[in-house]
Formats: sequence, C-alpha cells, structure tokens
Amino acid sequence: MSSAPASVRANGRTYAWPKQPVAVLCIDGCEPEYINQAIASGRAPFLAALRERGVCLTADCVIPSFTNPNNLSIVTGVPPAVHGICGNYFWDRDAGAEVMMNDPKYLRSGTLLAALAQQGAKVAVVTAKDKLRALLGHELRGICFSAEKADEATHAMNGIDNVPALVGMAVPSVYSAGLSEFVFASGVKLMERERPDIIYLSTTDYVQHKAAPGTAVANDFYAMMDGYLGQLDALGALIVLTADHGMNAKTDAFGRPNIVYLQDALDRALGAGATRVILPITDPYVVHHGALGSFATVYVADANRVAAVATVIAALPGVELTLTRTDACARFELPPDRVGDLVVVSERLTVLGTSRERHDLSGLDAPLRSHGGVSEQRVPLIANRRPGSLPVGRRWRNFDAFDLALNYLQ
Amino acid sequence: MSSAPASVRANGRTYAWPKQPVAVLCIDGCEPEYINQAIASGRAPFLAALRERGVCLTADCVIPSFTNPNNLSIVTGVPPAVHGICGNYFWDRDAGAEVMMNDPKYLRSGTLLAALAQQGAKVAVVTAKDKLRALLGHELRGICFSAEKADEATHAMNGIDNVPALVGMAVPSVYSAGLSEFVFASGVKLMERERPDIIYLSTTDYVQHKAAPGTAVANDFYAMMDGYLGQLDALGALIVLTADHGMNAKTDAFGRPNIVYLQDALDRALGAGATRVILPITDPYVVHHGALGSFATVYVADANRVAAVATVIAALPGVELTLTRTDACARFELPPDRVGDLVVVSERLTVLGTSRERHDLSGLDAPLRSHGGVSEQRVPLIANRRPGSLPVGRRWRNFDAFDLALNYLQ
Repeated sequence: MSSAPASVRANGRTYAWPKQPVAVLCIDGCEPEYINQAIASGRAPFLAALRERGVCLTADCVIPSFTNPNNLSIVTGVPPAVHGICGNYFWDRDAGAEVMMNDPKYLRSGTLLAALAQQGAKVAVVTAKDKLRALLGHELRGICFSAEKADEATHAMNGIDNVPALVGMAVPSVYSAGLSEFVFASGVKLMERERPDIIYLSTTDYVQHKAAPGTAVANDFYAMMDGYLGQLDALGALIVLTADHGMNAKTDAFGRPNIVYLQDALDRALGAGATRVILPITDPYVVHHGALGSFATVYVADANRVAAVATVIAALPGVELTLTRTDACARFELPPDRVGDLVVVSERLTVLGTSRERHDLSGLDAPLRSHGGVSEQRVPLIANRRPGSLPVGRRWRNFDAFDLALNYLQ
Repeated sequence: MSSAPASVRANGRTYAWPKQPVAVLCIDGCEPEYINQAIASGRAPFLAALRERGVCLTADCVIPSFTNPNNLSIVTGVPPAVHGICGNYFWDRDAGAEVMMNDPKYLRSGTLLAALAQQGAKVAVVTAKDKLRALLGHELRGICFSAEKADEATHAMNGIDNVPALVGMAVPSVYSAGLSEFVFASGVKLMERERPDIIYLSTTDYVQHKAAPGTAVANDFYAMMDGYLGQLDALGALIVLTADHGMNAKTDAFGRPNIVYLQDALDRALGAGATRVILPITDPYVVHHGALGSFATVYVADANRVAAVATVIAALPGVELTLTRTDACARFELPPDRVGDLVVVSERLTVLGTSRERHDLSGLDAPLRSHGGVSEQRVPLIANRRPGSLPVGRRWRNFDAFDLALNYLQ
C-alpha cells in the first residue's frame, strides 16, 4: 500500500484512502426497530456488543425512500439531484413513455467505488437483486455481481466466476431471505479470499416487507445477519451498516392495506387524461408490495391546472404532503427533469396507488408493509469502530456511510 | 325501556338512545399494528372474525396524543378546545405554578356519560388508573371506579363496592398488564350482573410502552383482550373499541432513547429563565416512560422573543413541528389559555425532554416507546356490528366512538 494515494475525490467530496478492508452494507428496509428488537431478543449478540465498542447514529435517507435512489446516493455520496436516479421509473414526456431508470445511461455522476478502483483500490460489490448491479457497477473495475444471478457471473462481466461454489450456497429464490443471506455469505468469503480494500453489500427487503420488527421471522433474519457481521469483524473489516429506507405497516388494525388510488381520484375529479400518476416504486419485482409505496409523482397535462390538481390531492385522507416540482426538488434534492409537476407523499400507514385495477394484490400473503415516504426516512448508521469525535449537530445521511468509514473511523 | 328518550344531546351533538348494552373501550396506546399482529399470529380469533361481521376504521386521535385529553374527548364527543383538558399539566402564569389538570374543576363541558345517566340510562365506567376516574366520572350518577383502587370502591363514592370479589381478581400493581385485565374482567362481570345501557372501559398502556406489536408480550395482552371482547360480544353488547393514542419506538437501532432536551437547548441559546418548557405527559406515573413524549409546550418570558425561540427550536434535529399558540390551537383544537406560546412536536422516533437532570430514566427497563406526537395520531375504531352505510370521505376521530355506536350501528 506504499504507493496508495492519501485520499480520493468523488462528486466534490474527499475521502481518506482505506487503510484496512472497509465493508459498507446497505440493509434494505432496515427500520431501526428491527435491530433494536433483535438485540432485545438476545438474537444479535454482535450488534449488542457494538453498543460498547461501536457507534450508532440515526441518519436520514433520500426521499423517495426507495431502494435505487438510496443505493446510488450511498455509492456516489450525493443526492439524486446530482446522480440522477430518483426512482425506478420516470415519465419521459417527449417519448410519451414510462421509462425504467435502471440503466447506467441515466446515471449522471460516477461512483466513489469506481473512483477508488480507478486509483488502484480492490473493490467488490454484491447486490441481492440484479436490478441494481449495473448501476452500482457502473465503470467499476472490480468484482460486481448479484446474488440473483450469481451462477451467471463471469470473470469478463463480473470480475469473478464460480460464485455459488465460493459461497457454498445454491442461488436462492429472488423472493426469499436466502437472497440476502447469499449477499452476506459472499461478503465473508470475498473478505477471506480476495481481501478487498472496499466491499459494498446491498441486500433485499423481502423479509422486511413481510415481517414486523421483533417478530420471529424478522429476528431470524437479523440473527443471521448478526452472525455474518461478526465474521466480517473477525476478519478485521471496518464495518459501516446503513439502510436504503425504513419500513412501516401500511394497513388498518385488521391488516387491510390503506390505499389512496390517486389516478382514480384524479380521474373522477378532473377527467381521464388530465393527469398521469407515476409510482417510482414500480419495478419488475412487485409481488411483495404490489407496487404500493408512500410516494408518487403526478404529471399534469395542462400546466394551468397544476394548482387545481394539488388541491384535489391535498384533500384526500391519508395524503401527508403535496408539493410542486420546485418545492419537492428543493426539499428532497431531486432532479427536476425526472419529477412530475407534483410530488405526493402519504402518511405513515397509507400507500399511494394509481388505478385500482392496475394493482395486483393477489401476491400479498401478509399484511402490507412498505416505504417511500418521509415516515421511512430514518435509518440506522452503525459502525464497529468508535470515532475519536464526530461533528456536533450534523444531520447524518445514509449517503455519508463512506464518509463516516473513511474519514472518521480509521 | 318504553319511557326512554329517543335521543340524548351532549356538547352540541345528538346521539340515539342505546337500544342494547353498548360497550365503548379505550385501549390505551393501541397502535393499529398491535391488533393486526395479534390477528396475524392467530392469537385474536374474536377480532379476526370481526373482519367479516364488524367494521374497522382508522381514526385520528386528539393531539397531544396523550391519555387524558383523548379519554375526555371520547366521553364528551368534542376536542380539548371545548372540554378544556389538553394534557396532564399546564403552566398557570398568574399563579406561577405548574398545575395538574386531573381535577374535574378544569373540565369545561359535561360528558355524554353524565347526560345519559341524567336521562335515566344505567352507566358504568371502569378505568385502569385512578387519575382518570374523577374526570370521567364527573357529575355521573352510576358506577365509576378504577382498577387501581378497586378495593376502596364504595357505594357512596363509586356506585359499587366489593369489586375485587365481583371480578374475582386481586387488585393488580399499577405497573402491570393485570391492571388492564382487571378493567376488562370488570366490564364482563358488570355486563353480566348490572346489564348497563352504557359501559366505558379505559385501560393503561403499560404493556404498549414496553412491548412492540407482534412480540410475545404484546400478543399475550391482545389475546387476553380478545377473550374478554368475545365474552362481551356473547353477552349481547354492541362493542366499539378505539384508542387514546398510538405508540412508537423512540430509540435508535441500539435501543437508546432519542431525546431532545428542549429546556437545555433553549437555556444554552437564550439563557436560563427565558423560557419554560412544559411536558404535558408528566403525571405521577412516569416510571415506564420517564415523562418523555413527543409533545411539549413552551412559555416565553418576553413576548417579543417568541419568534426567536421558535427559530431555535425548529433547527433542533428531531423536531418535526414548531407552531405558535394560535396555529397549534387552530390545528389541534386546543384551549389557548392552557397552551404555551409555542407548541413543539417531535418526529416519530424522537421524544422531547426538559432538562437532562429532570428526567429519571432509571426505571426504563426496556427500550423507550412513547407517544404524544402526530406520529401517534392514527388509531383503530373497531366495532362488532356492520353499519348499513357510513358517510364517504369522513375524517373519523376517536371521539366519534359513541356517535358510531349509537347513530350508525344500532
């Protein structure tokens, strides 16, 4: 490491060069209460021990509190206004089409991971679902694969092959706790065999969408995670763990989803075609949440009717915020050209839908839990090192994870 | 019942006369998710059956989301602006003293319970803690006692005696799940023996302050409750169940409380004596929450500095709302003369304290869970009858419980 640079810059921020293996983990949907309850139940002894020798901050994630915007913020260190990824979908007015944003061509800034690799760091990235792999691995020279397609990984494409043999697990179903376990297990095996300078692990919230904090299924997941964290720690890694977003029940007391069908309400009030509701949570994997989250953006056909549309939306029970594009982009640091005329956020126990007939809820085999709103903004930011000091009164973001690791903890 | 009136009025609202025994239950701290999880776990078969033959609405409670303001709203049918009880404490500027509001002399309107009894209905009230008994029983001719002091109940004072013998339980500790069970058991025995026209049962949130929804302790509580509800149902009672407020974790991922010590922050910024922070959650029973909730009111010595104080508070991490008295009283329907110059609400995972040394957290034997904020406003409103129809788009309040029971369900 004698020739290693002292620091690396990415998107206007400076990071000290890793002096030890650094593992940053993004635990999908990790409401702080999951960890609290797992510790309280005695199932997470490693995390419990960090109360004495680590640090736990509570950070704000990016709104919309969805997976892609937040994972991209964590690996770029900047909000969606800079990196461009503000959801899974946006509406391309010129093309007249809903466009998926999981292609790296929509990424407007490089990642810290690529910058580190560019300057000689050994970097590895493991995601649960393949949808994130291409974005996180953008221009990255290193290892980058998804658990979902681990058996298809090749040296040419992913910097590694024979992953299932390395990990000692078959590729799990994309709808399983096992998919995240595969990510953790891969991290440990890579840390043992490859000893990367930086490893970024990103799981899936399949369990969190189904199981509330403190329930047996949730505690099982966090007990499993705790074991792998302990192994990474024992291998000498500096660990920083955060989340892309929190998770809340979105139901009434009988477990039935509280849904505001925005498109239906707007069509009734203003006529079909007057507005187009886009749910940026929509992606190819919607079985466990029915594409229902607490954030929507609305395109209004007639620019003169934006205020009228906002008035209709704001009066709907369950709606917490109705913001103009300008206000929403200022408040949530979003790219204006990928946001509709209005941004709508629902309150904690409510989700936003488009039209009733466009949501297939038949796959929901447990009461709906979801995210997307301000109510899911608070996430843990945990490390296995204790900093000498931290800035007083700083608003920590989940996308300060690498800043915390590299600039404060080593 | 041939001589019974057709209806009864209280505080400007009209209620149909009870045609069958009506039981209204206020389950303290009953976040909707408690019931959802108990049903999902299979421990609440009676509530589960109500999905088919009952109704479940989600209602808004009164802010501050504390016990006394909400219980009084439920039994009066009006917000604190009308009945006057907006917390456990207020600051009497003239007297220069913090004043407890649990004396009926602070009540500014009569209760529906008293009005019903006045016109000949047989009314019974059972509360968990004695602090509520005097307020709920104000000018009430009927049965009214607390589980806490059930063994002291006399015919002269409480309209009943020998309560422990009737219930078949010893008086439980004020800090126990048993205190609420005593309330339920009393309700069933009174329904059997006294056959009241109206019974109001109000529990304590001891369990909810300690146990998250879906955990074993919480499910045990709701299984117990479910059994008593089934007995009330079998006795022919029309049941409406609601809550005084919800409940949320107020900790970081390691279970440590997120506390904004408001008085300390204001003293640092503006000097001691410039402000007085009042926490209306404070009462004689603070062991399980350390007098920490998500609502505070602030009195400012110099009227010209109110805006400056608001600016200091609004900048504190964890503060969600900082409102002037006027705005807070308009938004939350509070009595201006019992509210400070500013009202402060903290976000979901954060509580507000006064000065660090004024809070004894030694009694917290579980990670802090509490209430008081807008984040605890959504509560269940459940009944064991199915209405013919309900108004579309109505914002239901928990203090519509009697309206729902008497005007829609019989």
